[in-house]
Amino acid sequence: MSAILNIPAATSGYRVLSQADIIAEIAQLPEAAAILGGKPSEWTIRDVADGYINAVFIVDGPEGGVCAKQGLPYVRYHGESWPLDEKRSFFEASYMRRLEPIVGQLAPKLLHFDPVLQFIVMEKLSPHVVLRGALIEGQTFPKVAADIGRYVAAASFHTSDLGVPFERKFEDIATFSGNVSLLRISVDLIFTDPYVEVWRNRFVPELAGWAKAFREDTELKSAVAIRRNAFLSNRQALLHGDLHSGSVMVTEDETRVIDGEFSTFGPIGFDLGAFIANLVINWYAQGAYVRDKAEREAHQRYLLDQIVTLWETFRAEFLRLWDTHPDTGGDGYPASHFADAAGRARLATIRHDYVQAIFEDLVAFAAIKMIRRVLSYAQVADFLVIEDTVRRAEVQAATLAFARTVLKDPARFADLGAFLDAIPHFERTTLDPALAR
Amino acid sequence: MSAILNIPAATSGYRVLSQADIIAEIAQLPEAAAILGGKPSEWTIRDVADGYINAVFIVDGPEGGVCAKQGLPYVRYHGESWPLDEKRSFFEASYMRRLEPIVGQLAPKLLHFDPVLQFIVMEKLSPHVVLRGALIEGQTFPKVAADIGRYVAAASFHTSDLGVPFERKFEDIATFSGNVSLLRISVDLIFTDPYVEVWRNRFVPELAGWAKAFREDTELKSAVAIRRNAFLSNRQALLHGDLHSGSVMVTEDETRVIDGEFSTFGPIGFDLGAFIANLVINWYAQGAYVRDKAEREAHQRYLLDQIVTLWETFRAEFLRLWDTHPDTGGDGYPASHFADAAGRARLATIRHDYVQAIFEDLVAFAAIKMIRRVLSYAQVADFLVIEDTVRRAEVQAATLAFARTVLKDPARFADLGAFLDAIPHFERTTLDPALAR
Repeated sequence: MSAILNIPAATSGYRVLSQADIIAEIAQLPEAAAILGGKPSEWTIRDVADGYINAVFIVDGPEGGVCAKQGLPYVRYHGESWPLDEKRSFFEASYMRRLEPIVGQLAPKLLHFDPVLQFIVMEKLSPHVVLRGALIEGQTFPKVAADIGRYVAAASFHTSDLGVPFERKFEDIATFSGNVSLLRISVDLIFTDPYVEVWRNRFVPELAGWAKAFREDTELKSAVAIRRNAFLSNRQALLHGDLHSGSVMVTEDETRVIDGEFSTFGPIGFDLGAFIANLVINWYAQGAYVRDKAEREAHQRYLLDQIVTLWETFRAEFLRLWDTHPDTGGDGYPASHFADAAGRARLATIRHDYVQAIFEDLVAFAAIKMIRRVLSYAQVADFLVIEDTVRRAEVQAATLAFARTVLKDPARFADLGAFLDAIPHFERTTLDPALAR
Repeated sequence: MSAILNIPAATSGYRVLSQADIIAEIAQLPEAAAILGGKPSEWTIRDVADGYINAVFIVDGPEGGVCAKQGLPYVRYHGESWPLDEKRSFFEASYMRRLEPIVGQLAPKLLHFDPVLQFIVMEKLSPHVVLRGALIEGQTFPKVAADIGRYVAAASFHTSDLGVPFERKFEDIATFSGNVSLLRISVDLIFTDPYVEVWRNRFVPELAGWAKAFREDTELKSAVAIRRNAFLSNRQALLHGDLHSGSVMVTEDETRVIDGEFSTFGPIGFDLGAFIANLVINWYAQGAYVRDKAEREAHQRYLLDQIVTLWETFRAEFLRLWDTHPDTGGDGYPASHFADAAGRARLATIRHDYVQAIFEDLVAFAAIKMIRRVLSYAQVADFLVIEDTVRRAEVQAATLAFARTVLKDPARFADLGAFLDAIPHFERTTLDPALAR
């Protein structure tokens, strides 16, 4: 039970809902039923599950639609042989309620959460599309990177020791500390599996040499372990926890962040790194798509521009929030210690260092996220759509080679320019990891 | 409610217990009553409150005694005008239960906790004395520093990502995240008050110049703020949270850590630094005690030796636990990533770096703790027994001068030898902070 969020966590009486059950549940919700309009017999329902984890449906009525989502007692994509605590929907709903006053229109509106059924009803996003699929098709969206930069800046600032007194932060920490089932997936699939032999790993056979090289690379595993430890120990702010391009829905004008069931307290650079990793993945994957060269290069330039925009927007917005919210009661850097001219000057340095440390985290977590999407269980469509597995392996090897260098030579990537410049240098990587740069 | 610790947190029905009430409560506890022996009418009770916070009593019977402690709805030493959540005793009891299997005989046995009355009954420690008072009298105890080193090593290892899977750690974090009332005292009295003007500060008038210098020292406040932020953000292990020489009871042969109501997750160096700070405070205070010079110098050598023993014991024991417990399921540095010869060699480096980072934290937190005991609300008897306030101010100024240098020039204190060597250099500090070294 979270007192502030007012959501009970109890789940006895849980059952997996059929499509008919979902319509019956929504029929009892005045706000959702009013959005749909007409009678329940006029409503249609369709399965739109896209991620690996949950059951997701769109319910449409004569006047409008809603999105319905239920946490299942197993991993949806894998089936009942991979059990998973269905209470994850409690954390998704808690995340949405916590951030609603902070991120506003950058997330869908939560209409209903049933803690017994672990059942969420939220705003239907239409005509929004999932960013990952759109990027694969070469579509561009002018606002998404700036919107994500603003989203992470606001969400992290206002849940950190800069934005709230620690009493409020610790209340949030107590709530989200319960989200261990999904965090176990993050820890295993992101930080462990790519570096060991495990049944879940699903890389193409052509990458066996790279996978073996990574399993035997002590320096690489050491860099990963240090970040893994930071991920578990640094309670800097409330994270989305899975902020890749499949967790973002877009139109030309609008951006909505969805799927907060992995939410946890951790280092801010983890969310930023996740998003950037998936833009880099798309950059490398584009090399294997059959597409006009000029068109492909234009799309790749768009991706790199988006990374710049994301970071610059995050940085400016996070610093703006810090500068314009001196009276949050946040316990991180008390205003009373930095009130005179020397203090204000010093605080500017502290802020610079704080944001620079987020950047260093971002770079490392981005590389770790690239690797997990190549070698670990949850593969991404950017690569899966490449039917020629040799070509797929080649662009995946390029991604691995870049990520490896980022992790093993962090001094080389002290600013974003160096990070972006390096991406094309790894495009022509061989399938022999020993020969790769 | 903590499921693992099995302690309900509810407190409705709370009342402050009189001495007669306490006897009546204990009469209903078979285990405690058996320790006392005889009939309740034969029992005696006396107030032994020593710290600032709680009501503490010793109840003696014909056969033995117990210690009874109740959280009051205010700060005991200050009175009802400083309200304080009485639920703190829940966290003290939770801390004792969590650590009982880990630290064994290094803490008193918890006999009873009543969550309604916030009432704790524990083993009476006899003939143990409070370490602080004994050190003031120039007594020495051969085992205490090694025992505290072992205590912190065991308590921190087995509650960290090295010693338990994160699922267990997060359960503990959820429990102790509720301990915000006491943590607010820590944050304010340790990290804020010494650097601002606030009604609670109680330094002697002779130190007004030093207090003003600290309030205006941006570089010093910056170093403190960075550690303050780390204290709130780094959930490395479960801490005692107030491990000074008044929280340790000793005999020649035994050491017992008491008073865990400030328990919280934080950086391991915070507990070690607290204990060392209070040995350093005693070192400086000895200079103003009327005592034979040779005797005083011998006691000061003992104090420095104890600091070495504490650190060396902690270091060796922490590394031994890490080395001999490879199968804890701890998520920090997974054994599967470091299983070959290169991995084992790398892990040795990682361990060295991990412990060195604890040392760097220790040094900074020790300095911060020294400062709070001079300038902030909760003064220590080591200084208060010096009736000549000028002499008191002089040795307090020496403590401040040393702590200031430690915080502003951390590179100079990269090993314990440098830290110890510097202590005597600040003994003859002036009351003018601008002239002090």
